Amino acid sequence: MNQQFKKGIKIIGIACSPFNREKDTLVTVIGAIYRGSLLLEGVLKTKVTVDGEDATDRIAKMIKQSSHYQQLKLIMTRGVTIAGFNYIDQTKLNDLTDLSVISVVDREPDLETIHAALKNLPNGEERYQIIMKNGPPKPMISSSNEEPIYVQYVNMNEEALAQLLKEITIAGRMPEPVRVARLIALAEATNE
Amino acid sequence: MNQQFKKGIKIIGIACSPFNREKDTLVTVIGAIYRGSLLLEGVLKTKVTVDGEDATDRIAKMIKQSSHYQQLKLIMTRGVTIAGFNYIDQTKLNDLTDLSVISVVDREPDLETIHAALKNLPNGEERYQIIMKNGPPKPMISSSNEEPIYVQYVNMNEEALAQLLKEITIAGRMPEPVRVARLIALAEATNE
Repeated sequence: MNQQFKKGIKIIGIACSPFNREKDTLVTVIGAIYRGSLLLEGVLKTKVTVDGEDATDRIAKMIKQSSHYQQLKLIMTRGVTIAGFNYIDQTKLNDLTDLSVISVVDREPDLETIHAALKNLPNGEERYQIIMKNGPPKPMISSSNEEPIYVQYVNMNEEALAQLLKEITIAGRMPEPVRVARLIALAEATNE
Repeated sequence: MNQQFKKGIKIIGIACSPFNREKDTLVTVIGAIYRGSLLLEGVLKTKVTVDGEDATDRIAKMIKQSSHYQQLKLIMTRGVTIAGFNYIDQTKLNDLTDLSVISVVDREPDLETIHAALKNLPNGEERYQIIMKNGPPKPMISSSNEEPIYVQYVNMNEEALAQLLKEITIAGRMPEPVRVARLIALAEATNE
Protein backbone atom coordinates (compact mmCIF):
# COMPACT_ATOMS: atom_id res chain seq x y z
CA MET A 1 0.00 0.00 0.00
CA ASN A 2 1.38 3.32 -1.07
CA GLN A 3 2.27 5.48 1.93
CA GLN A 4 0.88 8.45 0.01
CA PHE A 5 -2.66 7.15 0.42
CA LYS A 6 -2.78 6.35 4.10
CA LYS A 7 -5.96 7.43 5.86
CA GLY A 8 -6.11 11.02 6.85
CA ILE A 9 -4.12 12.47 3.96
CA LYS A 10 -4.84 16.05 3.12
CA ILE A 11 -6.80 16.57 -0.07
CA ILE A 12 -8.16 19.70 -1.71
CA GLY A 13 -11.46 19.29 -3.55
CA ILE A 14 -12.21 21.87 -6.27
CA ALA A 15 -15.59 22.91 -7.70
CA CYS A 16 -17.02 26.02 -9.31
CA SER A 17 -20.20 27.99 -8.70
CA PRO A 18 -23.15 28.03 -11.02
CA PHE A 19 -23.05 31.07 -13.34
CA ASN A 20 -24.99 32.84 -16.02
CA ARG A 21 -23.16 32.91 -19.34
CA GLU A 22 -25.22 35.98 -20.37
CA LYS A 23 -23.84 38.21 -17.65
CA ASP A 24 -20.95 36.61 -15.77
CA THR A 25 -17.37 36.80 -17.00
CA LEU A 26 -15.79 35.43 -13.81
CA VAL A 27 -16.92 32.45 -11.75
CA THR A 28 -16.00 31.61 -8.16
CA VAL A 29 -14.01 28.42 -7.63
CA ILE A 30 -13.94 26.87 -4.16
CA GLY A 31 -11.23 24.66 -2.70
CA ALA A 32 -12.31 22.50 0.25
CA ILE A 33 -9.35 21.14 2.20
CA TYR A 34 -10.10 17.80 3.82
CA ARG A 35 -8.16 15.63 6.22
CA GLY A 36 -9.35 12.23 4.92
CA SER A 37 -13.10 12.04 4.50
CA LEU A 38 -14.29 13.55 7.72
CA LEU A 39 -12.60 16.75 8.69
CA LEU A 40 -12.85 20.00 6.76
CA GLU A 41 -9.75 22.00 7.62
CA GLY A 42 -9.98 25.01 5.37
CA VAL A 43 -11.75 26.68 2.48
CA LEU A 44 -10.03 28.56 -0.35
CA LYS A 45 -11.53 30.72 -3.03
CA THR A 46 -10.49 32.12 -6.38
CA LYS A 47 -12.13 33.25 -9.61
CA VAL A 48 -11.65 31.98 -13.15
CA THR A 49 -12.91 33.24 -16.50
CA VAL A 50 -16.05 31.75 -18.05
CA ASP A 51 -14.93 29.66 -21.06
CA GLY A 52 -11.41 31.07 -20.54
CA GLU A 53 -8.03 29.38 -20.25
CA ASP A 54 -6.85 30.58 -16.83
CA ALA A 55 -8.26 27.83 -14.57
CA THR A 56 -5.07 25.75 -14.27
CA ASP A 57 -2.91 28.74 -13.32
CA ARG A 58 -5.51 30.27 -11.01
CA ILE A 59 -6.09 27.02 -9.13
CA ALA A 60 -2.35 26.38 -8.82
CA LYS A 61 -1.84 29.90 -7.45
CA MET A 62 -4.70 29.55 -4.95
CA ILE A 63 -3.25 26.29 -3.65
CA LYS A 64 0.38 27.43 -3.48
CA GLN A 65 -0.57 30.58 -1.56
CA SER A 66 -2.42 28.57 1.10
CA SER A 67 -0.92 27.83 4.50
CA HIS A 68 -2.10 24.24 3.93
CA TYR A 69 -0.03 23.75 0.78
CA GLN A 70 2.92 21.97 2.40
CA GLN A 71 0.62 19.30 3.89
CA LEU A 72 -1.48 18.69 0.79
CA LYS A 73 -1.00 15.45 -1.13
CA LEU A 74 -3.66 15.57 -3.76
CA ILE A 75 -5.93 17.81 -5.82
CA MET A 76 -9.35 16.45 -6.75
CA THR A 77 -11.44 18.45 -9.20
CA ARG A 78 -15.04 18.10 -10.31
CA GLY A 79 -14.33 17.38 -13.95
CA VAL A 80 -11.54 18.73 -16.16
CA THR A 81 -13.72 21.52 -17.56
CA ILE A 82 -14.75 24.25 -15.14
CA ALA A 83 -16.55 27.60 -15.49
CA GLY A 84 -18.02 26.39 -18.75
CA PHE A 85 -15.22 25.28 -21.08
CA ASN A 86 -12.30 26.66 -19.15
CA TYR A 87 -10.19 23.56 -18.49
CA ILE A 88 -7.83 21.96 -16.05
CA ASP A 89 -4.57 20.81 -17.59
CA GLN A 90 -3.82 17.99 -15.15
CA THR A 91 -0.23 17.55 -16.26
CA LYS A 92 0.51 21.23 -15.87
CA LEU A 93 -1.32 21.44 -12.53
CA ASN A 94 0.78 18.52 -11.31
CA ASP A 95 3.95 20.26 -12.57
CA LEU A 96 3.03 23.57 -10.91
CA THR A 97 2.08 22.10 -7.53
CA ASP A 98 3.91 18.75 -7.28
CA LEU A 99 0.61 17.20 -6.19
CA SER A 100 -1.29 14.26 -7.64
CA VAL A 101 -4.26 15.49 -9.68
CA ILE A 102 -7.54 13.63 -10.07
CA SER A 103 -10.77 14.60 -11.80
CA VAL A 104 -14.07 12.93 -10.88
CA VAL A 105 -17.48 13.31 -12.49
CA ASP A 106 -20.67 11.52 -11.58
CA ARG A 107 -21.70 10.43 -15.05
CA GLU A 108 -19.98 9.37 -18.24
CA PRO A 109 -18.99 12.51 -20.15
CA ASP A 110 -20.26 12.78 -23.73
CA LEU A 111 -16.88 13.35 -25.35
CA GLU A 112 -18.27 14.01 -28.82
CA THR A 113 -20.51 16.81 -27.58
CA ILE A 114 -17.65 18.33 -25.59
CA HIS A 115 -15.36 18.11 -28.62
CA ALA A 116 -17.97 19.83 -30.83
CA ALA A 117 -18.65 22.58 -28.26
CA LEU A 118 -14.95 23.30 -27.84
CA LYS A 119 -14.61 23.94 -31.57
CA ASN A 120 -16.60 27.16 -31.07
CA LEU A 121 -13.95 28.53 -28.70
CA PRO A 122 -10.43 29.90 -29.20
CA ASN A 123 -7.89 27.05 -29.23
CA GLY A 124 -10.77 24.56 -29.15
CA GLU A 125 -8.90 21.62 -30.63
CA GLU A 126 -5.92 22.29 -28.37
CA ARG A 127 -8.23 22.37 -25.33
CA TYR A 128 -9.68 19.01 -26.30
CA GLN A 129 -6.21 17.50 -26.68
CA ILE A 130 -5.27 18.81 -23.24
CA ILE A 131 -8.29 17.39 -21.43
CA MET A 132 -7.82 14.03 -23.21
CA LYS A 133 -4.05 13.90 -22.79
CA ASN A 134 -4.23 11.37 -19.97
CA GLY A 135 -6.87 9.26 -21.67
CA PRO A 136 -10.66 9.36 -21.47
CA PRO A 137 -12.47 9.27 -18.12
CA LYS A 138 -12.33 5.76 -16.65
CA PRO A 139 -15.21 4.25 -14.64
CA MET A 140 -14.24 3.44 -11.05
CA ILE A 141 -16.38 2.45 -8.06
CA SER A 142 -16.31 4.92 -5.15
CA SER A 143 -19.17 3.43 -3.15
CA SER A 144 -20.40 -0.16 -3.20
CA ASN A 145 -23.97 -0.48 -4.49
CA GLU A 146 -23.57 2.73 -6.49
CA GLU A 147 -22.88 3.40 -10.14
CA PRO A 148 -19.26 4.22 -11.00
CA ILE A 149 -17.79 7.68 -11.14
CA TYR A 150 -15.55 8.67 -14.07
CA VAL A 151 -11.96 9.47 -13.27
CA GLN A 152 -8.92 11.03 -14.98
CA TYR A 153 -5.64 11.39 -13.11
CA VAL A 154 -1.92 12.04 -13.22
CA ASN A 155 0.86 10.97 -10.88
CA MET A 156 -1.23 8.24 -9.28
CA ASN A 157 -1.17 4.48 -8.84
CA GLU A 158 -4.54 3.13 -9.99
CA GLU A 159 -4.82 0.51 -7.27
CA ALA A 160 -4.14 3.06 -4.53
CA LEU A 161 -6.60 5.45 -6.16
CA ALA A 162 -9.32 2.78 -6.20
CA GLN A 163 -8.88 2.28 -2.47
CA LEU A 164 -8.69 6.00 -1.72
CA LEU A 165 -11.95 6.72 -3.57
CA LYS A 166 -13.78 4.24 -1.34
CA GLU A 167 -12.25 5.66 1.81
CA ILE A 168 -13.22 9.25 1.13
CA THR A 169 -16.72 8.70 -0.23
CA ILE A 170 -19.42 8.67 2.44
CA ALA A 171 -22.51 10.26 0.85
CA GLY A 172 -23.69 9.22 -2.60
CA ARG A 173 -20.75 8.47 -4.89
CA MET A 174 -18.83 11.75 -5.03
CA PRO A 175 -15.76 11.87 -2.74
CA GLU A 176 -16.22 14.25 0.21
CA PRO A 177 -13.68 16.93 -0.76
CA VAL A 178 -15.39 17.48 -4.12
CA ARG A 179 -18.95 17.02 -2.84
CA VAL A 180 -18.38 19.64 -0.14
CA ALA A 181 -16.52 22.05 -2.43
CA ARG A 182 -19.57 21.98 -4.70
CA LEU A 183 -22.00 22.59 -1.76
CA ILE A 184 -19.97 25.63 -0.72
CA ALA A 185 -19.74 26.84 -4.33
CA LEU A 186 -23.52 26.55 -4.73
CA ALA A 187 -24.01 29.01 -1.86
CA GLU A 188 -21.79 31.51 -3.70
CA ALA A 189 -24.55 31.92 -6.25
CA THR A 190 -27.01 33.10 -3.54
CA ASN A 191 -28.10 36.69 -4.08
CA GLU A 192 -29.39 38.10 -0.83
CA MET B 1 -33.18 10.84 26.35
CA ASN B 2 -35.01 13.46 24.39
CA GLN B 3 -35.95 12.22 20.93
CA GLN B 4 -35.01 15.64 19.62
CA PHE B 5 -31.31 14.96 20.19
CA LYS B 6 -30.89 11.55 18.65
CA LYS B 7 -27.75 11.13 16.55
CA GLY B 8 -27.96 12.45 13.07
CA ILE B 9 -30.30 15.36 13.74
CA LYS B 10 -30.08 18.23 11.33
CA ILE B 11 -28.40 21.34 12.71
CA ILE B 12 -27.54 24.65 11.09
CA GLY B 13 -24.33 26.29 12.30
CA ILE B 14 -24.08 30.06 11.83
CA ALA B 15 -20.96 32.24 11.65
CA CYS B 16 -20.02 35.52 10.04
CA SER B 17 -17.08 36.58 7.91
CA PRO B 18 -14.30 38.83 9.08
CA PHE B 19 -14.91 42.44 8.05
CA ASN B 20 -13.38 45.87 8.13
CA ARG B 21 -15.42 48.36 10.17
CA GLU B 22 -13.81 51.24 8.23
CA LYS B 23 -15.30 50.20 4.87
CA ASP B 24 -17.84 47.42 5.21
CA THR B 25 -21.49 48.06 6.02
CA LEU B 26 -22.67 44.51 5.30
CA VAL B 27 -21.07 41.25 6.37
CA THR B 28 -21.65 37.78 4.95
CA VAL B 29 -23.18 35.23 7.31
CA ILE B 30 -22.86 31.54 6.48
CA GLY B 31 -25.19 28.73 7.54
CA ALA B 32 -23.66 25.24 7.43
CA ILE B 33 -26.30 22.51 7.55
CA TYR B 34 -25.05 19.34 9.19
CA ARG B 35 -26.54 15.92 9.64
CA GLY B 36 -25.02 15.12 13.03
CA SER B 37 -21.31 15.79 13.20
CA LEU B 38 -20.12 14.25 9.98
CA LEU B 39 -22.14 15.15 6.96
CA LEU B 40 -22.41 18.63 5.51
CA GLU B 41 -25.68 18.73 3.59
CA GLY B 42 -25.96 22.33 2.51
CA VAL B 43 -24.59 25.84 2.79
CA LEU B 44 -26.70 28.99 3.09
CA LYS B 45 -25.64 32.59 2.86
CA THR B 46 -27.05 35.96 3.81
CA LYS B 47 -25.77 39.41 4.73
CA VAL B 48 -26.31 41.44 7.90
CA THR B 49 -25.43 45.02 8.83
CA VAL B 50 -22.22 45.76 10.76
CA ASP B 51 -23.25 46.81 14.30
CA GLY B 52 -26.89 46.80 13.09
CA GLU B 53 -30.01 45.14 14.47
CA ASP B 54 -31.11 42.96 11.54
CA ALA B 55 -29.25 39.72 12.30
CA THR B 56 -32.12 37.87 13.97
CA ASP B 57 -34.57 38.60 11.16
CA ARG B 58 -32.04 37.97 8.40
CA ILE B 59 -30.96 34.64 9.82
CA ALA B 60 -34.57 33.54 10.38
CA LYS B 61 -35.41 34.45 6.78
CA MET B 62 -32.39 32.61 5.38
CA ILE B 63 -33.35 29.47 7.31
CA LYS B 64 -37.06 29.56 6.51
CA GLN B 65 -36.39 30.00 2.79
CA SER B 66 -34.15 26.92 2.71
CA SER B 67 -35.34 23.58 1.36
CA HIS B 68 -33.74 22.06 4.49
CA TYR B 69 -35.94 24.03 6.89
CA GLN B 70 -38.54 21.33 7.52
CA GLN B 71 -35.85 18.85 8.61
CA LEU B 72 -33.89 21.23 10.81
CA LYS B 73 -34.08 20.81 14.58
CA LEU B 74 -31.62 23.31 15.90
CA ILE B 75 -29.77 26.55 15.20
CA MET B 76 -26.27 26.91 16.62
CA THR B 77 -24.61 30.31 16.37
CA ARG B 78 -21.06 31.42 17.09
CA GLY B 79 -21.91 33.81 19.90
CA VAL B 80 -24.98 36.05 20.30
CA THR B 81 -23.25 39.06 18.78
CA ILE B 82 -22.42 38.85 15.09
CA ALA B 83 -21.07 41.32 12.51
CA GLY B 84 -19.66 43.40 15.34
CA PHE B 85 -22.43 44.27 17.80
CA ASN B 86 -25.38 43.19 15.73
CA TYR B 87 -27.05 40.58 17.95
CA ILE B 88 -29.04 37.40 17.89
CA ASP B 89 -32.22 37.54 19.94
CA GLN B 90 -32.45 33.85 20.78
CA THR B 91 -36.04 34.03 22.02
CA LYS B 92 -37.19 35.81 18.88
CA LEU B 93 -35.20 33.48 16.61
CA ASN B 94 -36.84 30.52 18.34
CA ASP B 95 -40.27 32.17 17.89
CA LEU B 96 -39.67 32.90 14.22
CA THR B 97 -38.35 29.46 13.31
CA ASP B 98 -39.73 27.05 15.94
CA LEU B 99 -36.20 25.68 16.32
CA SER B 100 -34.05 25.34 19.41
CA VAL B 101 -31.39 28.06 19.47
CA ILE B 102 -27.92 27.69 20.99
CA SER B 103 -24.95 30.03 21.05
CA VAL B 104 -21.43 28.72 21.62
CA VAL B 105 -18.19 30.66 22.06
CA ASP B 106 -14.75 29.25 22.76
CA ARG B 107 -13.82 31.52 25.64
CA GLU B 108 -15.57 33.23 28.49
CA PRO B 109 -17.06 36.49 27.21
CA ASP B 110 -16.05 39.66 29.05
CA LEU B 111 -19.57 40.88 29.78
CA GLU B 112 -18.50 44.21 31.24
CA THR B 113 -16.56 45.14 28.13
CA ILE B 114 -19.46 44.09 25.91
CA HIS B 115 -21.88 46.10 28.03
CA ALA B 116 -19.66 49.20 27.82
CA ALA B 117 -19.16 48.85 24.04
CA LEU B 118 -22.89 48.48 23.44
CA LYS B 119 -23.55 51.79 25.19
CA ASN B 120 -21.95 53.54 22.20
CA LEU B 121 -24.57 52.12 19.84
CA PRO B 122 -28.26 52.90 19.27
CA ASN B 123 -30.43 50.92 21.72
CA GLY B 124 -27.26 49.75 23.47
CA GLU B 125 -28.84 48.99 26.84
CA GLU B 126 -31.73 47.20 25.14
CA ARG B 127 -29.27 45.10 23.10
CA TYR B 128 -27.48 44.07 26.28
CA GLN B 129 -30.76 43.05 27.93
CA ILE B 130 -31.64 40.96 24.88
CA ILE B 131 -28.35 39.05 24.74
CA MET B 132 -28.50 38.43 28.52
CA LYS B 133 -32.21 37.56 28.61
CA ASN B 134 -31.54 33.83 28.93
CA GLY B 135 -28.76 34.28 31.45
CA PRO B 136 -25.01 34.66 31.03
CA PRO B 137 -22.99 32.14 28.97
CA LYS B 138 -22.60 28.89 30.91
CA PRO B 139 -19.44 26.75 30.74
CA MET B 140 -20.07 23.29 29.28
CA ILE B 141 -17.67 20.59 28.15
CA SER B 142 -17.86 19.70 24.45
CA SER B 143 -14.73 17.58 24.27
CA SER B 144 -13.06 15.65 27.08
CA ASN B 145 -9.56 16.92 27.88
CA GLU B 146 -10.47 20.35 26.55
CA GLU B 147 -11.47 23.59 28.24
CA PRO B 148 -15.21 24.31 28.33
CA ILE B 149 -17.10 26.29 25.73
CA TYR B 150 -19.62 28.95 26.85
CA VAL B 151 -23.22 28.33 25.94
CA GLN B 152 -26.53 30.24 25.92
CA TYR B 153 -29.72 28.58 24.71
CA VAL B 154 -33.49 28.57 24.51
CA ASN B 155 -35.97 25.74 24.13
CA MET B 156 -33.46 23.10 25.22
CA ASN B 157 -33.03 20.54 27.97
CA GLU B 158 -29.59 21.06 29.50
CA GLU B 159 -28.81 17.38 29.94
CA ALA B 160 -29.64 16.63 26.31
CA LEU B 161 -27.60 19.64 25.23
CA ALA B 162 -24.58 18.43 27.22
CA GLN B 163 -24.73 15.10 25.40
CA LEU B 164 -25.33 16.66 22.00
CA LEU B 165 -22.30 18.96 22.34
CA LYS B 166 -20.04 15.95 22.88
CA GLU B 167 -21.53 14.07 19.93
CA ILE B 168 -21.05 16.85 17.42
CA THR B 169 -17.60 18.06 18.47
CA ILE B 170 -14.76 16.23 16.71
CA ALA B 171 -12.01 18.82 16.21
CA GLY B 172 -10.94 21.09 19.03
CA ARG B 173 -13.88 22.13 21.17
CA MET B 174 -16.20 23.93 18.76
CA PRO B 175 -19.11 21.80 17.49
CA GLU B 176 -18.76 20.90 13.79
CA PRO B 177 -21.67 22.94 12.39
CA VAL B 178 -20.26 26.16 13.86
CA ARG B 179 -16.60 25.30 13.23
CA VAL B 180 -17.31 24.61 9.57
CA ALA B 181 -19.60 27.64 9.13
CA ARG B 182 -16.71 29.77 10.34
CA LEU B 183 -14.20 28.10 7.96
CA ILE B 184 -16.52 28.80 5.03
CA ALA B 185 -17.12 32.35 6.24
CA LEU B 186 -13.37 32.98 6.48
CA ALA B 187 -13.00 32.19 2.76
CA GLU B 188 -15.62 34.86 2.01
CA ALA B 189 -13.09 37.47 3.02
CA THR B 190 -10.65 36.32 0.30
CA ASN B 191 -10.05 38.99 -2.30
CA GLU B 192 -8.81 37.39 -5.47
